[in-house]
Amino acid sequence: MRQKNKFLLNRTANLRQNFPSYKIDSLIIFNMNNIRYLSGFTGSEGVLLINSDKTILLVDGRYIAQAGVETSGLRIIKYKDKIEGIAQTIKKFKLKRVGFEATSITLGMYNQLKKTISREVLVPLNDELKLLRACKDKTEIALITKAAEISFSSIRFLIDKIKPGFTEKDAALELELEARRIGADEIAFSTIVAAGENAAFPHARPTDRKIKKGDFVVIDFGVKYKGYCSDETCTIAFGKLTDRQKSAYQIVKNAHDHALACIKANIPATNIDRCVRSIFGEKYVRYFVHGTGHGVGLEVHEAPRLTSNSTDILKTNMVVTVEPGLYIPGFWGIRIEDTVLVKEKSCEKLTKMDKELIIIE
Amino acid sequence: MRQKNKFLLNRTANLRQNFPSYKIDSLIIFNMNNIRYLSGFTGSEGVLLINSDKTILLVDGRYIAQAGVETSGLRIIKYKDKIEGIAQTIKKFKLKRVGFEATSITLGMYNQLKKTISREVLVPLNDELKLLRACKDKTEIALITKAAEISFSSIRFLIDKIKPGFTEKDAALELELEARRIGADEIAFSTIVAAGENAAFPHARPTDRKIKKGDFVVIDFGVKYKGYCSDETCTIAFGKLTDRQKSAYQIVKNAHDHALACIKANIPATNIDRCVRSIFGEKYVRYFVHGTGHGVGLEVHEAPRLTSNSTDILKTNMVVTVEPGLYIPGFWGIRIEDTVLVKEKSCEKLTKMDKELIIIE
Repeated sequence: MRQKNKFLLNRTANLRQNFPSYKIDSLIIFNMNNIRYLSGFTGSEGVLLINSDKTILLVDGRYIAQAGVETSGLRIIKYKDKIEGIAQTIKKFKLKRVGFEATSITLGMYNQLKKTISREVLVPLNDELKLLRACKDKTEIALITKAAEISFSSIRFLIDKIKPGFTEKDAALELELEARRIGADEIAFSTIVAAGENAAFPHARPTDRKIKKGDFVVIDFGVKYKGYCSDETCTIAFGKLTDRQKSAYQIVKNAHDHALACIKANIPATNIDRCVRSIFGEKYVRYFVHGTGHGVGLEVHEAPRLTSNSTDILKTNMVVTVEPGLYIPGFWGIRIEDTVLVKEKSCEKLTKMDKELIIIE
Repeated sequence: MRQKNKFLLNRTANLRQNFPSYKIDSLIIFNMNNIRYLSGFTGSEGVLLINSDKTILLVDGRYIAQAGVETSGLRIIKYKDKIEGIAQTIKKFKLKRVGFEATSITLGMYNQLKKTISREVLVPLNDELKLLRACKDKTEIALITKAAEISFSSIRFLIDKIKPGFTEKDAALELELEARRIGADEIAFSTIVAAGENAAFPHARPTDRKIKKGDFVVIDFGVKYKGYCSDETCTIAFGKLTDRQKSAYQIVKNAHDHALACIKANIPATNIDRCVRSIFGEKYVRYFVHGTGHGVGLEVHEAPRLTSNSTDILKTNMVVTVEPGLYIPGFWGIRIEDTVLVKEKSCEKLTKMDKELIIIE
């Protein structure tokens, strides 16, 4: 518990150091994942206010008791109305320049805040907080690793069982049940098991379609463990594949391997996306309909972005996915995804499935 | 499929009728649940634009194929950058007054939109769209009912199995596994199984605490079925209760029953909250630390709100929860919740567990 609090104190201390450069004397955090990251509070609603020497958690009546148990070293204030609670706290502590996450507050809420708090006091922050949680500490890496181990075991369990005749839904259920049995708190996102022509939808949902010979089946799966997510995709094949399918799989695999080989700290994230596209080349790149990857942590999609228009720079201890794919509408889809830890000169795979093609007869 | 499309067309047609009173010639929808409600598209990202005679779904490359399958009678446009896609579409159709959901767009995104779209063109809507999905049609009621049946069977299954020695986590897992086995698509929210002193946290998460005699155990559970949620809470008791516990349960039950008896169309939602508080009276009301209820549909918490400061009016075919509770920090908690369909002169319970006290020896 003391160790955990130390982490949390470090995180707020780091943030406070940036107050002068943000030209603020305090900061309101609305994003619940950021609040959890900075305070340990896991409720679904609340506001964290950090000023030069105090951290204050504002919650409604439902969360007073929970906040008391989950946090320490901060003040807990109960509000009846969130806006009013914020306004009163700002007034009480005579805050003059209060930063806030412009990308975590709705326009409607901002307009309400402006009614009670002078516009000059409210300082919208955009990119400044974008990478707040992007570099992970040891505890976080351990939790993501544990989540990745649970999903690895669950995928292995499924692959030992699955055969033609299974529906996509059957397969997704087996995966999720096993994950829960072996310790997942919940799934990190809606499980994708997409067979044959359904695999051409990158974000397909499991249906009653039965798996049959000749199918590629895309399995995109992740779990949460103590708040942290894993994210891994395997594409497995059933029965005989056409030569075109085999070579497409190999190209996706090459793109994936090449991208992993390129990852290291202090390069633009967009480079990794370019690695993937360079392997796909003109012939294939139009079938790659999404970005290459994203950060993973308390959210399954978080900063940085590994896309063609990303402005993020990879840093040591970022945890990111690499997930090239090819999708031929009406026919099939392939995606191969690992989650990796960025290191100074390389990266380390946290997801553990081998990505050589598995063919189930 | 045709039937479904007719529903969707009716929903957009109803919205269009309000354009003159909103002083807009078109409407951008950002909220993904609203997009699903109006178009059938279930992806995780996209924008719906409705003008006087056309409906346009803007999605990125990942969702082109899926949007084509899930929707009909609307135009699908692919964007690379969301803001740019919106700006171009507004320009192309020469839209002059584009309404949008001020409570579904972040301040950051609004600021970006303003860079490419003139401020006069953008018309923020707040309360106008608040109740868009609040009154349910037959299809929706059937899906919520089905979700409620699945969670009823799962809770019954758990109650037949559960005994002292089970941990909260064991119980939550049994519930969720059974729900998935019998057809739930996923859980609707993080399952709450909270025993003894943990039940005093209204939003507790399951822990390794073992259930023992003398405990109240709060089970708050819901599933999703084809997108629609259920929400029901039972508090069961183990072994012998104190007289104070027994009378507290009876008071919560009375508050719950009284509130249900008061529900009918065309009364302020806050009346129902007042019913609950009137039963609790001065002695107990300070242990009731949350509102009385909320709407349920595509989201487990949606409009209307049944709270002390709600401005909503109950209408026929709204689906709402009634969930009074008492929480004594350090000792125990009790909550009893049903989801009901509002009718002209009464309401109909969609959740099916009997709420008489169950004591497991």
